[in-house]
Amino acid sequence: MKMMKVGLIGFGRTGKAVASVILDNPDICLEWVMRKSHILEHRSVPEFLGIESREPGFIHSIDEFTAEGLLDHLPVDVIIDFSSATGIHYYGKAAADQGVTIVSAISHYEQSEIEVLHTLAEKTRVLWSPNITVGINFMITAAKVLRRITPDTDIEIIEEHFKGKTGASGTALRIASELNVEACEVRSIRAGGIIGTHEILFGFPFQTVRLRHESISREAFGKGAMFAAEHLIDKPNGLYRMEDLMLPYFGSSE
Amino acid sequence: MKMMKVGLIGFGRTGKAVASVILDNPDICLEWVMRKSHILEHRSVPEFLGIESREPGFIHSIDEFTAEGLLDHLPVDVIIDFSSATGIHYYGKAAADQGVTIVSAISHYEQSEIEVLHTLAEKTRVLWSPNITVGINFMITAAKVLRRITPDTDIEIIEEHFKGKTGASGTALRIASELNVEACEVRSIRAGGIIGTHEILFGFPFQTVRLRHESISREAFGKGAMFAAEHLIDKPNGLYRMEDLMLPYFGSSE
Amino acid sequence: MKMMKVGLIGFGRTGKAVASVILDNPDICLEWVMRKSHILEHRSVPEFLGIESREPGFIHSIDEFTAEGLLDHLPVDVIIDFSSATGIHYYGKAAADQGVTIVSAISHYEQSEIEVLHTLAEKTRVLWSPNITVGINFMITAAKVLRRITPDTDIEIIEEHFKGKTGASGTALRIASELNVEACEVRSIRAGGIIGTHEILFGFPFQTVRLRHESISREAFGKGAMFAAEHLIDKPNGLYRMEDLMLPYFGSSE
Amino acid sequence: MKMMKVGLIGFGRTGKAVASVILDNPDICLEWVMRKSHILEHRSVPEFLGIESREPGFIHSIDEFTAEGLLDHLPVDVIIDFSSATGIHYYGKAAADQGVTIVSAISHYEQSEIEVLHTLAEKTRVLWSPNITVGINFMITAAKVLRRITPDTDIEIIEEHFKGKTGASGTALRIASELNVEACEVRSIRAGGIIGTHEILFGFPFQTVRLRHESISREAFGKGAMFAAEHLIDKPNGLYRMEDLMLPYFGSSE
Repeated sequence: MKMMKVGLIGFGRTGKAVASVILDNPDICLEWVMRKSHILEHRSVPEFLGIESREPGFIHSIDEFTAEGLLDHLPVDVIIDFSSATGIHYYGKAAADQGVTIVSAISHYEQSEIEVLHTLAEKTRVLWSPNITVGINFMITAAKVLRRITPDTDIEIIEEHFKGKTGASGTALRIASELNVEACEVRSIRAGGIIGTHEILFGFPFQTVRLRHESISREAFGKGAMFAAEHLIDKPNGLYRMEDLMLPYFGSSE
Repeated sequence: MKMMKVGLIGFGRTGKAVASVILDNPDICLEWVMRKSHILEHRSVPEFLGIESREPGFIHSIDEFTAEGLLDHLPVDVIIDFSSATGIHYYGKAAADQGVTIVSAISHYEQSEIEVLHTLAEKTRVLWSPNITVGINFMITAAKVLRRITPDTDIEIIEEHFKGKTGASGTALRIASELNVEACEVRSIRAGGIIGTHEILFGFPFQTVRLRHESISREAFGKGAMFAAEHLIDKPNGLYRMEDLMLPYFGSSE
Repeated sequence: MKMMKVGLIGFGRTGKAVASVILDNPDICLEWVMRKSHILEHRSVPEFLGIESREPGFIHSIDEFTAEGLLDHLPVDVIIDFSSATGIHYYGKAAADQGVTIVSAISHYEQSEIEVLHTLAEKTRVLWSPNITVGINFMITAAKVLRRITPDTDIEIIEEHFKGKTGASGTALRIASELNVEACEVRSIRAGGIIGTHEILFGFPFQTVRLRHESISREAFGKGAMFAAEHLIDKPNGLYRMEDLMLPYFGSSE
Repeated sequence: MKMMKVGLIGFGRTGKAVASVILDNPDICLEWVMRKSHILEHRSVPEFLGIESREPGFIHSIDEFTAEGLLDHLPVDVIIDFSSATGIHYYGKAAADQGVTIVSAISHYEQSEIEVLHTLAEKTRVLWSPNITVGINFMITAAKVLRRITPDTDIEIIEEHFKGKTGASGTALRIASELNVEACEVRSIRAGGIIGTHEILFGFPFQTVRLRHESISREAFGKGAMFAAEHLIDKPNGLYRMEDLMLPYFGSSE
């Protein structure tokens, strides 16, 4: 099997963690990292992260290349985007024109950007997932199944994060929206340095079922992006959610 | 819609709890309870349980009727069996001959009795579930999905019960068997009066997912038996597991 | 050691559970149950509860005896009160005059009744605890210790109960008050048939400590009342909280 | 108040985390770090860790100074030891002779080294705690209280760590030993990347109490060492455990 070549957009704290996961995966090659800032320009990713790897990955800034130029010069199969909502304007059209798969983990897009995604999805495979971990997306998909099985069961969504975090977590709000729970019903616990937990509690009259996700570190986003990239590779063009990639596993019996 | 008529075999502690759940369901009518013991014979079930209900349900003993006689005299759509492994020999053939659906919640059958179930399943719908709650069966089905999605993830099964309970719980052993975890790997906590919890922990490198089931009371078995009865009603003849009835909910997208 | 004689005021659902715990304790004798209602009058408590016991305990109604008459006729060492806020007016003075220990588990007293308790406490040992379980009172006392050790640590109070329960639980509000947490900060989860859990979460920057209490059944109140009765027996007159009886265990080193 | 001056022995992963916590505390000054290795020699600790601080702290190796020389040249109030069991032989006598407080977080000492601690404790304050976090030590002390209150209650100790960790955790074994639970009774869960949790479960007949500690990062050890240093400062010479420093908080009522 040919090794999958990946380009990474964004190199903040999460981007760095994602890069380390990609470098750690022998089936996937990190071709390049593209970021807005000139800091770290032309540094080698494995060297910067202190990871032994023979993968080429160098860090570039968007002033250096157009996306067309970058993809011509250093072609990839997949672009993974952990930058910001505007990143898509830089690379979207070039990626779609060349049939490069797009995996976007941007937290929030404006409606206009969502429309861009739809347009790009006519020419390539596009996945957008605001929380791209396998655990959270499995949990949401499973919770929707349980709600279909027992539509009248009480659902509570409880999330815990570090003290400073304001507002309910974006992930909790997305869980609420997927399960038709009012956003204001999410219970947010804020204390100390808790990294992040999300619990979906189903209260039956005579039993309780809890689906609980505990974050350990942001590398989980890298694992989720890998999962997405690997599962999109042979799919037809279109706009996908993580749930779409998981549903085949839900359908079969063994 | 015609009301579903149910006969209940077995009237121990769990049988009584199941009867109370059936009486509480306005769409299902408890026609009779059949038990081995002569104690409570000819008592009315609602009166005995102190539940207001216009359902007829009287308690009979197996010495009073053959199963054929019982089903002729007081026909039902479904037989729910919370008695013991040998109960099936009393009512199985008569039920199958009349096309009565069989829902068995017996904990353990010998191989010979499992063969009987297969034979009966040629003539009617037969479901056997050793732990017939909706929560546990959902959890097992969901856990099998997650294992298919991430086959290499570490799985731990932890169960908690009251101090006196010896050996790992039957439910935990079944979870282990369904997930290809060694039975000896189940972690059993025994303390005080804990009613019963089962947790399936998926340990990823950077995140943890816990599926946790907490029992509140044995009425949960009644709810599960109702779920089974309602979902079997329009199915073809055959031998079913709870998982088979849940899978359609897993397959669809919304 | 002489066996402790106990009289129980109140015989609702909790009172019955408390009676069963007293009957089960070979060191304590249930002399009588006193209640407002005439229902069950002159029934034997062990017989009514289906418990084998040689203890005399009969059920009386307050119309039958004055408290003085009752205590003369059937003297006890301790009165345990699971009735209502007004119960104290029936038996308080008579008990104090005879030096009978009073253990009150009433949820809420008006200020005037609290003053009555103070007056009675000049003549006998009086304990009032709105949630008299050993577990909850240990947890509150321990949490106050941890708050003294680390006064700046974030505290969150989370309680879970069945769907219908309105408002934060009285126990959660008491925990909040003891820990100087705003009542409105208590997080209340309401779902299905959850019996009751209370969690006090201490969020440190680099670690989390959770003190969690899970109720199984109301018999826990009986165990707590026994604990109180046994620990008050050799105390001087005065008004006590459960915490006062627990503190000696906190102080010693081994 | 004069600022407390601290010297740190050991600069492995935990030592570095501890140093960052000390630098972050405005009331405590990190005078120096002493380690075996020559790597990083003469680097500034704040600069190496990327922390802004005006504290002097430079890194030295034990070949550079005798402990007497070091303490003459760069005197401190407290030595905090996160090195290894043999570290005490380097600095112990010099520290005791000068009355410098010793806080040792070494996991395991041989009997001969424990005797050294006792000898040093005649001349200065010595604290040894194998898991020096505030959370774990509070939990052990509180659990011992609850065991004294209810000596017959079932206790279960459950710990969770990352997959590779072999054997029960040292902390769990210490909890077991403090609570007279057999070491083989500790339940060890091993899965994925779990940082570390310890739960002490008290199972009562009608209620359950769980004391649960969740580790977030090793900086917690630094906080615990600070707690120890600050509480030892005005104590008489002697050998202390963390529990000894916590007990005064347990004893008082408000």
